Amino acid sequence: MAKVFFKQYLKMKLPGQGDNIAYVDRVREKLENLLHGRVEIPFELYEKIYKEFEKGKGEVTCSLMYDEKYHLLSIQAGRVEECYAVAIDIGSTTISAELIDLNTGEVLDSANCTNSQVKIGEDVLHRMFHAFNNKAGRDELQKLVAGDILSILDRFSKKIDMENLLGIGIGANTVMVHLLLNLPIETICRVPKTPIINAPGFIKAADIGINVNSFARMYILPSIGSYVGGDVVGGILISDMWKKEEVSFFIDIGTNAEMMLGNKDWLLCAAGAAGPAFEGGSLEKGMRAMEGAIDEVRYEDGKFKFHVIGDVKPIGICGTGMIKLLSELFIHGLVDRRGKLINGDRIFITEDVYITQNDIDNFMRTKAGANAAVSYMLETMNINLSDLDKFYVAGALGEYIDIEAAINIGMYPDIPRDKFVILGNTSLKAAKKMLMEREAHKVLKDIKENLTYMELGEEEGYIHYLEKALFLPHTDLSLYPSVEKRINLKR
Amino acid sequence: MAKVFFKQYLKMKLPGQGDNIAYVDRVREKLENLLHGRVEIPFELYEKIYKEFEKGKGEVTCSLMYDEKYHLLSIQAGRVEECYAVAIDIGSTTISAELIDLNTGEVLDSANCTNSQVKIGEDVLHRMFHAFNNKAGRDELQKLVAGDILSILDRFSKKIDMENLLGIGIGANTVMVHLLLNLPIETICRVPKTPIINAPGFIKAADIGINVNSFARMYILPSIGSYVGGDVVGGILISDMWKKEEVSFFIDIGTNAEMMLGNKDWLLCAAGAAGPAFEGGSLEKGMRAMEGAIDEVRYEDGKFKFHVIGDVKPIGICGTGMIKLLSELFIHGLVDRRGKLINGDRIFITEDVYITQNDIDNFMRTKAGANAAVSYMLETMNINLSDLDKFYVAGALGEYIDIEAAINIGMYPDIPRDKFVILGNTSLKAAKKMLMEREAHKVLKDIKENLTYMELGEEEGYIHYLEKALFLPHTDLSLYPSVEKRINLKR
Repeated sequence: MAKVFFKQYLKMKLPGQGDNIAYVDRVREKLENLLHGRVEIPFELYEKIYKEFEKGKGEVTCSLMYDEKYHLLSIQAGRVEECYAVAIDIGSTTISAELIDLNTGEVLDSANCTNSQVKIGEDVLHRMFHAFNNKAGRDELQKLVAGDILSILDRFSKKIDMENLLGIGIGANTVMVHLLLNLPIETICRVPKTPIINAPGFIKAADIGINVNSFARMYILPSIGSYVGGDVVGGILISDMWKKEEVSFFIDIGTNAEMMLGNKDWLLCAAGAAGPAFEGGSLEKGMRAMEGAIDEVRYEDGKFKFHVIGDVKPIGICGTGMIKLLSELFIHGLVDRRGKLINGDRIFITEDVYITQNDIDNFMRTKAGANAAVSYMLETMNINLSDLDKFYVAGALGEYIDIEAAINIGMYPDIPRDKFVILGNTSLKAAKKMLMEREAHKVLKDIKENLTYMELGEEEGYIHYLEKALFLPHTDLSLYPSVEKRINLKR
Repeated sequence: MAKVFFKQYLKMKLPGQGDNIAYVDRVREKLENLLHGRVEIPFELYEKIYKEFEKGKGEVTCSLMYDEKYHLLSIQAGRVEECYAVAIDIGSTTISAELIDLNTGEVLDSANCTNSQVKIGEDVLHRMFHAFNNKAGRDELQKLVAGDILSILDRFSKKIDMENLLGIGIGANTVMVHLLLNLPIETICRVPKTPIINAPGFIKAADIGINVNSFARMYILPSIGSYVGGDVVGGILISDMWKKEEVSFFIDIGTNAEMMLGNKDWLLCAAGAAGPAFEGGSLEKGMRAMEGAIDEVRYEDGKFKFHVIGDVKPIGICGTGMIKLLSELFIHGLVDRRGKLINGDRIFITEDVYITQNDIDNFMRTKAGANAAVSYMLETMNINLSDLDKFYVAGALGEYIDIEAAINIGMYPDIPRDKFVILGNTSLKAAKKMLMEREAHKVLKDIKENLTYMELGEEEGYIHYLEKALFLPHTDLSLYPSVEKRINLKR
C-alpha cells in the first residue's frame, strides 16, 4: 500500500573531498533514488536541511507527502519513527476526530465536540445568512470551526509531539468546507448553486489558522455539487459499490440526507434537505443523542418501556428514539397510516416527555424525503428495488437506527435484512483513508468521471414521490410486504 | 517554443441550470483542456478566481508558469495581453537587469547598478566573513541585494504595470545566490566547500522580500559547485558547445574566472580565484570601467596615447586598459618576459595615473591563473590547443578586452582569431532564456549529467602550470607563435 504521508529515514555520507554536492540537492537526490520519483523541497526548508543534517551527522528523517510527486514537509536530525495524522469529520452539528498512527493505522485517540458555529445558528441556513456578502461574518464562522479543530488537536497533543503530525484529513459537506476555508457562500445559496471550489485537495493547514506546526498539510475530501460533499464521496470510498457489477444504494443520514445509486460503471448522486427531524431537532421534546435522551422505545401491554442514554431521568427524545416510537405507535395501532394519532394530539412517554401530532407530521415529511429519493432514483435508472445488491447506511444516526423500525415507518425499503450494511461515519473513515492510501486518491479521481449529480428539488416528478411516501409505511402497501404481515398479525 | 511564463485568456460560460461546477474547478478544467496538462491552483486564489470570473462575466486572463506542471499564478477579469519578466545578473560588483516583454521577447528597458553589498566589502571574502555564523550580517547582506533588485524593479515599474510581472530570472554565482536567499555560507568557506543548495529552481519572489506583487516567481540558475555558478551554467545555455561534436573552451571573466571545456558528451568545469585584478581592483590606480577610467592605451613614438571613458580627465585605469597597457609595455620592450619593468618601479601614463611593479606582479598572477586553467584542463582531457573549435569569452569585461592584447600577455591562447566568440553577459542572457523557453530547462537538466567539476586549487599538478604562466606571454614561447613574431618584428 503506497502511503500518502510518511517518514523516510536517511543515512548519508558527510560531504567530503570530491563530494561537495549541496546539502539540499544531496537530500533530494537520496530521496529521489529511494522513492523513484521527483521530490519537491520548499525554500523554507533549505537552512533547516543543512542544520538537521549537520546535527544528525548525515542521519536525518524526512517527513513527506505524496501528491503526484513527493513533497518534503520537514526534516529532523536522526531517526524519528513517530508519524501521525488526524482525521476530522466536520458535521454541521458535531465535529468528530481521530488521531491516527500513520505507521500502524491504529486510532490512538478520538474526540467529539459540538460545532461551535451552532452559536450562530443550529441551522446551516442561518450560518449561510450570517456569512452572506459579509466578510466579518465569514471570518467569525471560520474562527469558530478552526477553534474547534485547534481544541481537538490540543487534546491530542497530550498524546503525541505535534512536530510529528503530518496530515489533517477533512470530510465535510460543501458549505462546511467553504466556511472552513473562509470562502464566499453567496453562489451556493442562489441558483444554479455553484460552489467556489469542489476539489481543494491539499492545502497548508497553517494557511487557515490551523498552525499546529509550520508544515502540516490538510486534505479536504472533494464534493460533487453544492449539496453533495465529503459524506457521499466518503460513501464511495468506504462502501464497495463503486467496484461492483451489481447496483447498490447508499444513504448518509444526518441533518442532511445524501444518497447515491450505482455500480462500477455509473453513480447517480442526490441530496435531500432532510432537515433536523432525523436528529430529534424539530420535535417539541426532541434532542440530540446525548445524556437524558430516550433512544429506544417499546410498547408492551399498553405501556411504554424505554431506554435513556446515560441511564438518567429522561429529558427528551432523540432521532433513533423517534423512529422506534413512531414504528411502535404504528404497529400497535396508535397512529393510522396517514400518521395521525388515533386519540388526542399528543402521547406521553413519561410525565415530561411526549410527542405531538405536529412532531409526527414534521417527522413524516422527513422520512418521506428519504423514501421518495430512493424510489425516484431507482425509477429514473429503471432499477427494481429487488435488484439492489446492498443498501448502505452511513452517518452517526445510521449506526443506531433500528432497521425493523425504519422499515415499519417506510423510511428504509422493505428488502432482505442481510442487504443492509451499516457503515458508520463514512466521512471520517474516508478522511482517514485519504490520509493513508495513495490508491484512494486514484480511485476518487477515476470515479469522478462516472458520477452524475441530480438536484432532486429541480426534478419535476419528484413531488409525487414525496406525496406517496407521506403514508406509513407508504401509499402502496404492497411495497412493504413484511410490514403488511406484521400489522395483520398485530391487529 | 513552449513558454515558461505566459498568459492564457479564457472565455467561459457562466454557471447555469445543470452546470454548477465550482468556479475554481471550472477554471482548472478549462485550462487543463486547453494546455493538455495538470494545472495547480493555490488556495490563496480561490476567492479571487470567483471574483474575477464574475467581474469578467466568464472572461478572464490567467497568469501561468510551467514547472513540470502548470501553476496558476494569478487571474484577471477580461482580456489582458501584457506579460513581463525581468532577467537579472547579480555580479559581486555589478547588478545588471533587463525588462522583457514575454509576448515578443523584446527587451523594453535595462538597468545597471553597483551591488550595494560592496559597502560591506568590495571583496566577496569580506562579505562572506560578515555573514559567517552571523545571522544579523546575513540579514544585512540580503537586504542590500534585495534592495538593489527592488530599486531596479521600481525603475521598470514606470514602464509597466507590475501586476503583469510574472517572473524574475536570476543568474549569479553560488555565494551571491546564498546571500540573496539569506542562507548560511559557512560550509562554502571550509573544505569540502559544500553549498546549502545548488539548484533552487523556482521560489516565490515575495518569500525573499521581493514583493513586487504577491505571486511573481523567481527562477534561480543552478550552480555546479561552490564556485561554479550561474555564470558557467549560463555559458552552457548561451554557447552551443554542449551540442557540438567538436571540443570548445568557455571562459567567463569577472571578479572570478569560471571555465568550461567540453562538447556534447562531456563538460569539465573549473573555477579560478581570478581576484579583482582583472577588473582593475587591486591596482594602485585601478578602478572599475566607469567615467574617468582609462580603458584603451597605445604606446607610440615613446608616448602613451589613451582613451578615457566619458572623455573626462583620467582618474585611473580599468581592467581592459590594464590588459592593453601591459601588452604595449611588453611589445615595446618596457617590461621583460618576467613582467619586470626595465626602468624604475613605476610608469606614468598621465601626471596622476601610473602603474607600479607591484600592480604588474598582481596582474601577472591573475592572468597566469586564467592561462594555467586552460592548459591544465586541456592536458587533463588530453586535448591539443589546436583542436579547440571555439574559445568562448563571456562576462562584461570579456566584451571589451582587446583579443590581440590578451594574447600578447598570454591571458588568452594564441589560436586563430576566428575561433574567439564573444558572448557578453551569459548569466543575464541565460536568466532570460530560462524565463522564456521551457526547452532550456530540459537542456539544463540533461546536461547536468555530463558535467564534471574540478577544484583547481586541490589539483596537485596545477601549481606548475601557474608557475609556467608567470611569464609574458608564457615560459614556453613556442605556444605563442604570433606573439613571438610580433616581438621579433618590433625589436
